[in-house]
Amino acid sequence: MRELLAVGRRHVHEVMVATDMDDSPIVAEIVDIAYDRRIKVTEVSKRRLDAEAISEAPQGVLALAAPLKPVEIEDLLEGSGTPFLLVLDGITDPGNLGAILRTAEGAGVSGVVMPRHRAARVTPTVAKAAAGAIEHLRIAQVGGLPAALQLLGERKVWRIGLHGPAKDRLFDLKVADEPVALVLGAEGKGVSRLVRERCDQLVSIPILGELESLNVAAAGALALYEVVRARS
Amino acid sequence: MRELLAVGRRHVHEVMVATDMDDSPIVAEIVDIAYDRRIKVTEVSKRRLDAEAISEAPQGVLALAAPLKPVEIEDLLEGSGTPFLLVLDGITDPGNLGAILRTAEGAGVSGVVMPRHRAARVTPTVAKAAAGAIEHLRIAQVGGLPAALQLLGERKVWRIGLHGPAKDRLFDLKVADEPVALVLGAEGKGVSRLVRERCDQLVSIPILGELESLNVAAAGALALYEVVRARS
Repeated sequence: MRELLAVGRRHVHEVMVATDMDDSPIVAEIVDIAYDRRIKVTEVSKRRLDAEAISEAPQGVLALAAPLKPVEIEDLLEGSGTPFLLVLDGITDPGNLGAILRTAEGAGVSGVVMPRHRAARVTPTVAKAAAGAIEHLRIAQVGGLPAALQLLGERKVWRIGLHGPAKDRLFDLKVADEPVALVLGAEGKGVSRLVRERCDQLVSIPILGELESLNVAAAGALALYEVVRARS
Repeated sequence: MRELLAVGRRHVHEVMVATDMDDSPIVAEIVDIAYDRRIKVTEVSKRRLDAEAISEAPQGVLALAAPLKPVEIEDLLEGSGTPFLLVLDGITDPGNLGAILRTAEGAGVSGVVMPRHRAARVTPTVAKAAAGAIEHLRIAQVGGLPAALQLLGERKVWRIGLHGPAKDRLFDLKVADEPVALVLGAEGKGVSRLVRERCDQLVSIPILGELESLNVAAAGALALYEVVRARS
């Protein structure tokens, strides 16, 4: 929430603070930022706050904010720098989704593409796992991922899918100068066939242990930073 | 639990199955393995099962197993291959600890070193987040990490700490042939000073976004696979 207020990309109507909880430095900082930005601050009981909140365990402070602004895929290709997109094909676990978004922000992606349906949405639980990253990220929600990848191909974006059985290794990717879109699949299932067929290259991460795969958030971190590394 | 039974490194006294829950393929597989290994299988009510379980939300099956075998640091340096250790300095979140252990198993580490106190322990919640990895990993729990790192130094293990302010970049590490120990710090605080002072090299991960750091599980994945990459 500190990020929500500090970044200021979303309109915040009101900040509610529980009067009957111990002060914490982060809550004090949030209230300070709210006053700076002339946002209405209301003191309420912890019970009232919990009733208003849709995320679990609010830490004594709640912001009523406008929803994230919708962004189009084309918007993600504009702006400075070589485009670097992350495409998420049906991640279902909110904790994983939040973790991937946080790493994507750290890796400096130009934006994220997600399906509007059949996947985890950007809920308060996701936002919390993302540790503020969603306030900095541009996220395009699309009706169909295959069509989105088709469009990216037409715009000369090199589409790379992470796929366990792929022969090419992630570590051998050459992606320094091209616009690139990394495609991550759902936990367990991986990238779906229709989406894979729209990728220019499929790569895998070597697994040296006995388990079959990495967690999707760990795999995503490796893929995202492979691009960072190639470009640095 | 499938890994616990399939790997067979721990003695399992008994497997309890809830009679009043729908069959799932994974529970059926677990029961099959238990019969194969001549482990006693008892049918109980879901209520009884929940009362016996210490992890949350058991999926209708519970194994009563011996604790993980304690391992000494020296044991981790024996065996085939160049030693590759992961040292965890006070990770407190069980989900993060489990995620890191899962990635460590995938990266093929020789073993993990953790403090016995002041950190998350290998609880059922950790085991679940690790998706079976702890059954394959050798984990040494030590009284003090600085002494453990001292010992590793004497045994010619190159000790690399992840440290946000470090000038050397993770991507410039040269660790192909040496025995290596990667040291990861706690969420927020990083590697403690006493432990840092025992490291041969401190490296950082470049952050290109607005947030200050990566999640420790993501940072750990990058560090672990840096070694995999250098050695492959």
